[in-house]
Amino acid sequence: MKATVMYAAGDVRIEDVPDPKLIEPTDAIVRVTRACICGSDLWPFKELEPTPGGRRMGHEFIGIVEDAGADVRTLKRGDLVVAPFAISDGTCAFCQEGLQTSCRRGQWWGGVDNDGGQGEAVRVPLADGTLVALPVGRDDALMPSLLTLSDVMGTGHHAAVTARVGAGKTAAVIGDGAVGLCGVIAARRLGAEQIIMLGRHPDRIALARDFGATGIVSERGEEAVARVRELTRGTGAHAVLECVGSEAAMRTAMQIVRPGGAVGRVGVPHYEGVPATAQNFYDNVSIAGGPAPVRAYISELMPDVMEGRIQPGRVFDRVTNIDGVPDGYRAMNERESIKVMIEMP
Amino acid sequence: MKATVMYAAGDVRIEDVPDPKLIEPTDAIVRVTRACICGSDLWPFKELEPTPGGRRMGHEFIGIVEDAGADVRTLKRGDLVVAPFAISDGTCAFCQEGLQTSCRRGQWWGGVDNDGGQGEAVRVPLADGTLVALPVGRDDALMPSLLTLSDVMGTGHHAAVTARVGAGKTAAVIGDGAVGLCGVIAARRLGAEQIIMLGRHPDRIALARDFGATGIVSERGEEAVARVRELTRGTGAHAVLECVGSEAAMRTAMQIVRPGGAVGRVGVPHYEGVPATAQNFYDNVSIAGGPAPVRAYISELMPDVMEGRIQPGRVFDRVTNIDGVPDGYRAMNERESIKVMIEMP
Repeated sequence: MKATVMYAAGDVRIEDVPDPKLIEPTDAIVRVTRACICGSDLWPFKELEPTPGGRRMGHEFIGIVEDAGADVRTLKRGDLVVAPFAISDGTCAFCQEGLQTSCRRGQWWGGVDNDGGQGEAVRVPLADGTLVALPVGRDDALMPSLLTLSDVMGTGHHAAVTARVGAGKTAAVIGDGAVGLCGVIAARRLGAEQIIMLGRHPDRIALARDFGATGIVSERGEEAVARVRELTRGTGAHAVLECVGSEAAMRTAMQIVRPGGAVGRVGVPHYEGVPATAQNFYDNVSIAGGPAPVRAYISELMPDVMEGRIQPGRVFDRVTNIDGVPDGYRAMNERESIKVMIEMP
Repeated sequence: MKATVMYAAGDVRIEDVPDPKLIEPTDAIVRVTRACICGSDLWPFKELEPTPGGRRMGHEFIGIVEDAGADVRTLKRGDLVVAPFAISDGTCAFCQEGLQTSCRRGQWWGGVDNDGGQGEAVRVPLADGTLVALPVGRDDALMPSLLTLSDVMGTGHHAAVTARVGAGKTAAVIGDGAVGLCGVIAARRLGAEQIIMLGRHPDRIALARDFGATGIVSERGEEAVARVRELTRGTGAHAVLECVGSEAAMRTAMQIVRPGGAVGRVGVPHYEGVPATAQNFYDNVSIAGGPAPVRAYISELMPDVMEGRIQPGRVFDRVTNIDGVPDGYRAMNERESIKVMIEMP
């Protein structure tokens, strides 16, 4: 089968790899129907050291169960399923608490040990704990939005939850990528009254406005901080959704948060420690977030997708097939595209 | 009147200063009956640069209203009152939310602008918003515990609240000073099942056990981390109460917190940023806390003090008069004493 393999920064190839086979009785084999490229895939695309054996890529996919091990109880051949970006057993203490990203037997897609979602098929470890069946057919019009439940919509939701968005609050979203845009959806869904998007690209701003952003701040650094303060009567935002992961973004987050407010960070940190100021301490600012336990959020978010109340699938602005994946990385890296969806035949 | 003035690290003097007078119509004059020395007073006691004009000290006191400005509505001459460590107006948006430490007109005791609690009398700005009347006489046996409501009991409670202590949770308390000991009381009061105190001094450990600590860790650094992990089946504590403020303490806090857990920090940070690790992000660890809005907590905690369910006044292990204050600083700094109470005639 074909799969996406990254060998170094900028070096993404589509290669023939062995077809997946059941190894453990808790495994399933899933034939991928849709997958996508993640903003977080761009970090290795920028930074990966040369890796001779290559690294299998992709952690967001929908597909059809083709085979299931003897111990798989909740899924059967032919089921359409969505995979969260973290593999989890569903039974350990952390999974029971809804923190599947800290599962005691947790694994990650791709790399050298596992198949990745950006391929034609995937061996899914711990299939019962990991996969969620979808109540639609494989070509349903909702497919793009359902695909975002594997990562970006759940991640934007996690940013909003950990930043403690609630009714009547002011939210500020840092990052106009797919996660930031889903953060806007989530902030609105949770009742924020004012939603400020920090972003610059006209197409992304337009989408953010459609999703519920009430204000846009296109300045950078200190000027952005001043502008957010102006829009929030000098106090800053109750809830700041940090959806980038750079030190600059996190510094901005810590400067625009209101006393008593919270920063929910979901961008994988490319900085040491947390750049909190002494003032943040005196202001009783909270810092929360991490990788989103999207497995826990799928059941909460799916009804809103199914009934059309949220349309996170609109973050996909380009569709390709498996052979177009390397160019999809390039397009997202050059910010030509917000997010690329991969359709399999 | 006599008051405590600090001129430099180690240089604390009792001096004659002008008697306080009403300045604003929202002021009250309070004759101090009890006050105390705070662990946070030891930071300037160790570090204060020579300050020619001196700095008035003390932010925890109980006293009797001697005079009140024309706009003071809730207090009258003769009332016994407790003062929180922050001055607040009680009416701004932050006060209304219970975050009086961020009051828009907030001020701090002492320094060069205000009287301090370690003196015979105090001009209290914003008296209605700041002071809370006590339903007892000035020499009631509960006076030591009521005095802790001005800071350390509320601060320990804030550490527990922001670390999200709850029923059945494991709490770890870093710091065996008065705040840490009150953190143990608070963790127990909020239902923690396991309470681990990190401390070394036998008298403090004994008191922590009396207050509800179920385990003591006397190791330091990496060994302390290993020991806490051992006591928590390898996962760390749900709630970590950081009651010191040093970088070493905060690093320990970030290493002993469980995935999905929270660190509530109330020690004034003597470090840059927050020494969070990449693992803390992957573990979805939250960092919260700051100066405690004790004004908001007094009404919650007072009934438990009045009915004897908590006895935070036991943290006072030495009593002195105003002339003994300099030696009280020395004794606390040398850890001869946990916390010194000052009785006024």
